[in-house]
Amino acid sequence: MEEVNLPVCFGLIVRRTRTALGFTQQKLADVADLDRGYLSELERGVRNPTLTVQARLAVALDVRLSELIQQAEEMS
Amino acid sequence: MEEVNLPVCFGLIVRRTRTALGFTQQKLADVADLDRGYLSELERGVRNPTLTVQARLAVALDVRLSELIQQAEEMS
Repeated sequence: MEEVNLPVCFGLIVRRTRTALGFTQQKLADVADLDRGYLSELERGVRNPTLTVQARLAVALDVRLSELIQQAEEMS
Repeated sequence: MEEVNLPVCFGLIVRRTRTALGFTQQKLADVADLDRGYLSELERGVRNPTLTVQARLAVALDVRLSELIQQAEEMS
């Protein structure tokens, strides 16, 4: 696992999961109570999200956080 | 998954995994390049660690981060 790449991979997995659900960034940001600009940066791997932000995204995407992390690990 | 409890559960899982390895907090802090005081607070659920800090802990504990998160989810 490349630590330095994990935020990048996590962002890509969030984007992939979001688009598979047909959610816009604004929709996901609203459901997860995040700023849309922050979510945009997170999806581009610019942000290093905290555990609670990760958890809010997982709930909003209706998936377990461990599944999102596992997919990010497999990508990295 | 109770978002609010996830840092608490994550901290407990880190502590459990660390003690199973026979690592002191200082040892794990050194290997993960974290401050020992910070690690102590993280294990007590006071801290809300970023993704890269979580990843550094997983590497130092020789476990996948998704496994640590899964165990924390099962506890919460």
